[in-house]
Amino acid sequence: GPVSVVLKELRCTCLHVMPRVNAKMISNLQVFPAGPQCSKVEVIASLKDGTQVCLDPEAPFLKKVIQKILGSGNKKNE
Amino acid sequence: GPVSVVLKELRCTCLHVMPRVNAKMISNLQVFPAGPQCSKVEVIASLKDGTQVCLDPEAPFLKKVIQKILGSGNKKNE
Repeated sequence: GPVSVVLKELRCTCLHVMPRVNAKMISNLQVFPAGPQCSKVEVIASLKDGTQVCLDPEAPFLKKVIQKILGSGNKKNE
Repeated sequence: GPVSVVLKELRCTCLHVMPRVNAKMISNLQVFPAGPQCSKVEVIASLKDGTQVCLDPEAPFLKKVIQKILGSGNKKNE
């Protein structure tokens, strides 16, 4: 597979999770299922300021953020 | 920001969306909010066979897949 995927597969990435982030600051949200490389689900948000933060996969706040992002294309801002 | 983010920001990535994929085949799910680079939300799944596919952000199936992945760490398979 691609190099980025290989690198991710070596081990868990997230040591700490941020309790919450501003959804509008997220430029990319990545979800890595639990697997041989890491027994935890990992959620990594890339922020518009160039930083990356890990989020708690079980936080209710995360589900709201995902809903918000998935619905953000509905504004017909084309 | 990182090169991968810069590359993504140039334009929309997804021309076609797959109607559905097997959740167990997903090694990484990326969600890109709508923004200046692309007016659509884009959801890109990397599969365990090394391929990448785009998914429909509005498909009810996608919400189920996300729930399934976020809950996959609950099996206590450490």
